[in-house]
Amino acid sequence: MAFTLPVYQPPDFGKPPLKDAPLVRFAPVAKQGIAPDNYHATTIFPEYFQITKGDWVLLRNSRMDGVVVRAPAGLLVKEFHHLKVGEQVALNRGENGEEGIYVHTEAFARPRPVAEKFAFRTHLSRETSFSIDYDELYDLLPYEKENGFILWVLGPAAVFDWDSRNALVSLIQRGYVQGLLAGNALAVHDLEAALFQTALGQEIYCKRPVHLGHYHHLDALNLVRRAGSIAAVMESGTIRDGVMHALWQRQLPYVLAGSIRDDGPLPEVISDVMQAQEAMRALTMRATTVIAVASQLHSIAAGNLIPGYHVLPAEQVRPVYFYVVDMSEFAADKLTNRGSLAARGILTNAQDFLVILERGLSRS
Amino acid sequence: MAFTLPVYQPPDFGKPPLKDAPLVRFAPVAKQGIAPDNYHATTIFPEYFQITKGDWVLLRNSRMDGVVVRAPAGLLVKEFHHLKVGEQVALNRGENGEEGIYVHTEAFARPRPVAEKFAFRTHLSRETSFSIDYDELYDLLPYEKENGFILWVLGPAAVFDWDSRNALVSLIQRGYVQGLLAGNALAVHDLEAALFQTALGQEIYCKRPVHLGHYHHLDALNLVRRAGSIAAVMESGTIRDGVMHALWQRQLPYVLAGSIRDDGPLPEVISDVMQAQEAMRALTMRATTVIAVASQLHSIAAGNLIPGYHVLPAEQVRPVYFYVVDMSEFAADKLTNRGSLAARGILTNAQDFLVILERGLSRS
Amino acid sequence: MAFTLPVYQPPDFGKPPLKDAPLVRFAPVAKQGIAPDNYHATTIFPEYFQITKGDWVLLRNSRMDGVVVRAPAGLLVKEFHHLKVGEQVALNRGENGEEGIYVHTEAFARPRPVAEKFAFRTHLSRETSFSIDYDELYDLLPYEKENGFILWVLGPAAVFDWDSRNALVSLIQRGYVQGLLAGNALAVHDLEAALFQTALGQEIYCKRPVHLGHYHHLDALNLVRRAGSIAAVMESGTIRDGVMHALWQRQLPYVLAGSIRDDGPLPEVISDVMQAQEAMRALTMRATTVIAVASQLHSIAAGNLIPGYHVLPAEQVRPVYFYVVDMSEFAADKLTNRGSLAARGILTNAQDFLVILERGLSRS
Amino acid sequence: MAFTLPVYQPPDFGKPPLKDAPLVRFAPVAKQGIAPDNYHATTIFPEYFQITKGDWVLLRNSRMDGVVVRAPAGLLVKEFHHLKVGEQVALNRGENGEEGIYVHTEAFARPRPVAEKFAFRTHLSRETSFSIDYDELYDLLPYEKENGFILWVLGPAAVFDWDSRNALVSLIQRGYVQGLLAGNALAVHDLEAALFQTALGQEIYCKRPVHLGHYHHLDALNLVRRAGSIAAVMESGTIRDGVMHALWQRQLPYVLAGSIRDDGPLPEVISDVMQAQEAMRALTMRATTVIAVASQLHSIAAGNLIPGYHVLPAEQVRPVYFYVVDMSEFAADKLTNRGSLAARGILTNAQDFLVILERGLSRS
Repeated sequence: MAFTLPVYQPPDFGKPPLKDAPLVRFAPVAKQGIAPDNYHATTIFPEYFQITKGDWVLLRNSRMDGVVVRAPAGLLVKEFHHLKVGEQVALNRGENGEEGIYVHTEAFARPRPVAEKFAFRTHLSRETSFSIDYDELYDLLPYEKENGFILWVLGPAAVFDWDSRNALVSLIQRGYVQGLLAGNALAVHDLEAALFQTALGQEIYCKRPVHLGHYHHLDALNLVRRAGSIAAVMESGTIRDGVMHALWQRQLPYVLAGSIRDDGPLPEVISDVMQAQEAMRALTMRATTVIAVASQLHSIAAGNLIPGYHVLPAEQVRPVYFYVVDMSEFAADKLTNRGSLAARGILTNAQDFLVILERGLSRS
Repeated sequence: MAFTLPVYQPPDFGKPPLKDAPLVRFAPVAKQGIAPDNYHATTIFPEYFQITKGDWVLLRNSRMDGVVVRAPAGLLVKEFHHLKVGEQVALNRGENGEEGIYVHTEAFARPRPVAEKFAFRTHLSRETSFSIDYDELYDLLPYEKENGFILWVLGPAAVFDWDSRNALVSLIQRGYVQGLLAGNALAVHDLEAALFQTALGQEIYCKRPVHLGHYHHLDALNLVRRAGSIAAVMESGTIRDGVMHALWQRQLPYVLAGSIRDDGPLPEVISDVMQAQEAMRALTMRATTVIAVASQLHSIAAGNLIPGYHVLPAEQVRPVYFYVVDMSEFAADKLTNRGSLAARGILTNAQDFLVILERGLSRS
Repeated sequence: MAFTLPVYQPPDFGKPPLKDAPLVRFAPVAKQGIAPDNYHATTIFPEYFQITKGDWVLLRNSRMDGVVVRAPAGLLVKEFHHLKVGEQVALNRGENGEEGIYVHTEAFARPRPVAEKFAFRTHLSRETSFSIDYDELYDLLPYEKENGFILWVLGPAAVFDWDSRNALVSLIQRGYVQGLLAGNALAVHDLEAALFQTALGQEIYCKRPVHLGHYHHLDALNLVRRAGSIAAVMESGTIRDGVMHALWQRQLPYVLAGSIRDDGPLPEVISDVMQAQEAMRALTMRATTVIAVASQLHSIAAGNLIPGYHVLPAEQVRPVYFYVVDMSEFAADKLTNRGSLAARGILTNAQDFLVILERGLSRS
Repeated sequence: MAFTLPVYQPPDFGKPPLKDAPLVRFAPVAKQGIAPDNYHATTIFPEYFQITKGDWVLLRNSRMDGVVVRAPAGLLVKEFHHLKVGEQVALNRGENGEEGIYVHTEAFARPRPVAEKFAFRTHLSRETSFSIDYDELYDLLPYEKENGFILWVLGPAAVFDWDSRNALVSLIQRGYVQGLLAGNALAVHDLEAALFQTALGQEIYCKRPVHLGHYHHLDALNLVRRAGSIAAVMESGTIRDGVMHALWQRQLPYVLAGSIRDDGPLPEVISDVMQAQEAMRALTMRATTVIAVASQLHSIAAGNLIPGYHVLPAEQVRPVYFYVVDMSEFAADKLTNRGSLAARGILTNAQDFLVILERGLSRS
């Protein structure tokens, strides 16, 4: 079924209480990187700020826990540590217009089911049915491939298995991956698989431990570090398959963000996490659909950076879709518990998710 | 790749210490259902008993934690509670022939990997690669369908999802399910899905809660109980799809074992657990491959009942394959911790396992 | 802090729509064990039935998924399979009085927090704080010990560990356990620990595997079965410590419900699950606080049987408290997903829960 | 029981094959940060290098996945990225002396249990008994407090709960915490608790969500960032309780390592992960016991940095103890699967672990 964007329901600013709301107030930054008291912080929802009477400005490029700065070009969302002395920061925490700010939580609201006094199965779990999620992805991703930006967030488990690594490569080659956020481990183990057919020393197909296999990831790291970059290794022809190879072939953008677990690391890894966030944000700001698989660290990090919506050229507002695939209810709920309320959880193994998705997506 | 049975390596009874081993001793049952002191208990492995000098008898229809009774027809494995006064029970616990009993743990041993002083990834986890397990099943199941008996053990999660319920029906229709062990819940929710397209009141495709959906499973139970049996409902034509319908169409054997969680229960449910074990054992004794999905209770119960091997007509010994599919390492390890050492774990969601397996199996 | 019962807020039957509600209708049972169409099923909440104009009768001894029968003594809640031909069963599913039935979901409602447009941490998880739950139990249990009935539901993990087994014995001896629901495994491994200091062959303190330890639970079973009952073993003096011994010393009621996993089983195990439910119900109907620890099967079964409230002698209505202690969010949520909405989850290891609780409870 | 160090069993270099082993070979670094081909990488075990005939040098300050450099002062273990042009790096991967290197895996070997042909409970799980681990910690930590260095690795869950946060503070005040590795979140939520009695906006005792509580962690961050450092906030007297306060009072070393999830971050957070590893390594090199609680990221990172042993002044070799406390088997096994073979897993909630440990430790 062809995918169509849901219709955005803007708030009605012509009616009370929004009609009678005051203007939003601002206060200047007194110290680099520090917000003035009573600053307003952003959520994942569309937020409107009444700048002049009747002119409610919708934030663009919003995300969780940012602050709002008045600039000549309009309102900007910034991280606290980017605030500069003198910048004007929006104040107050009322969310219903009482201080000139409206947080619009019902923008794409689905019809709610009738309230039940008593019902089973109110929580997401491994026993929730996920058929419809797959089917929605089969409709959504071909649309996004042409009209949006599909960003993946991957833990290393995606390349620990033969079939799932192949499925991921196919998804890249077919255009269903338009950007990637990951860490050192995903890339190292993908390169290890290309060089040695192992991940952490275990064969990714036969799962036999290989003699002295614990050297493989180190040898892969040393090889790439000697070459100077992943790209240089690819150009040398040493590596001819896998996820990093497919990304290189299609010249797709990716960010490898550093973590304290990292060996090596690979030359492309951004070891400063604040710089890594900047690089990730450059992709999350473009993303219209995000699929986060088997990485609690990267999923939560991405959840912090992903807006709930985008404003398209003709002022059309569309939602950003955020899928989280994990084995544990705890991990999926953690995103919700961290404020990424709109994340859709699919509880399964990364391997199977990738295999099913790849097979189910249209080949057009 | 066509599947071939692994070759059985019998023990060498012509060499010491087995050559010089004594005969196994027996003692009579003094009280109904009670074994004599120092009884021998069976494991999942092939076990040999030296009855007369040089005549080592291999147990048939063995399983975990049984006792061995000498009967005119040979050696029988029995549960403790089936022991009758006067029956002769094999004694002693030595496993290396020192008391006339040999437990043969290396019968189908795969070549072991070289011992490593240091290695990663020694434990099964969700990050283990499972491609080869799927591929082995694609080879194994067509063989078993013709030459063995494929027994499934299913938790209700298998029918909570649209795609997986359909995949399971297809597996039944295509001959890849030859018997089923489950509980009341699997059958009730499958029937609920056929009648109302819900499971526990939630739509199995759209996952919307339905108004007063908490009545659905009760209504399904009441309907079947009124008809007198699942078969009667099927014959009436009220139910036209689903797992129970497919089993009925193909006249496949199944056991619905009772549990204290049961509502209703359905007329076919065996509410006495010892009787249920008898009925389950009738199927596990025929099983050559067992696939246990998403049920800790039923998987462990089946693990207790499943032999590790079968003796085929021409005294050929073959292994019994036992797959356990679950979301949690704890559940998969629990089988190993309960003695089902040969169980192969696949860590994923039941839904995806069924969908992938159904698609991957040959259509011949 | 001394515990006091929360005040019950009865519905106001003097106001519309309840004032104008019709009488509840009944229909006779036509077939043994089958409800008439459109029967009403009970929930965990207090439910009122208008029998004669203005006379709203509150159900007693209610529980989930029962049917309501009009009897000379008043309204009875019954399981479907207990229905007898000719009994009058309450009809209709409206819950707001529109058909003479009122389901009272706000009887002990706590003040709800202000609705937030955006909030973190809306789901129970291992990261939820549990200090207050322990403190509430320290207040509640001394009260219940004198004024209520504290029923425990235990999985075998409670006796797999030295400290937790001792803590449980102490809780029994100090009066904080007034009844127990469990299975064969809890009792067998407790007896194994008393006889051999192991559980499933592993030492419960040193956790060393013992040579041929896999015989221990079988030897324990055989010993008790030979004696004829757990009580007979206790009287013989063979066993001098542990949970079953402490229950026997204090002559506390317990139910060991059968399951298809059972070895043996012990003589006291009720192998028919419907009979086991009857025996369990005899205790759940008395329970004012239930603590279910480390058993998904038994916790869900208990959840099905436990009323949400009790009517005390002077028509005072009090809540029944239901705590569920488990390691996994899935297990805790499963109770909620099965309708046991009021269950309070504590996510931790059974061992530590028991140790902390025992130490924290007043010694008065 | 007073703790005593286990006796180290050195290899016997006077016997073949070690007696006849060649000298270890070295090759120079040709490019900054890149090891020569066939470099030797270290494990967590004691490793000996034969430098001159009969002189087997034991590595000091070893850890997983380092390379060995010959320096005037002896052999140094380095990370790959610290290698400088011209440094001499030890070569070859044989672990049994055949190339002049001996990896000593049995240095503190406990007596192994008799091999069983068949045994239950071979895997660590939540059902493993942990009493002895607590008791060993009660003996070990008072010893280490006086004679070693107790390093903690903590996830934020440790401060999400009232009792566990207090227990942790008490452990610090009583000397059982001598250094800490954590991330931004632990510190932020501890400070949030001190300022607002919440963590992520939920009360840490009553677990009520607080109105606009999602601002609390941001307000805590902004406050500390304005002050310039955690220390400055402590000196100002604004914060008077909690973990960071107790660390400050006792002037204990800690490292807050950055991650891509971080908001703020706090001024003390080291945002470059390679620099953070350096700072962490300064503490892990001193650690004699490490207790890692409720943080997969930090536990694995610490596992990479922690040696398996220390060489004490009089050439005495002692083990380093490494405990991992987590709710999931997957997390505990992951350390083992990543090579931290000696990690002892305790499966429980961080909250309960801290409460029990604090109460059980001697007050001397």
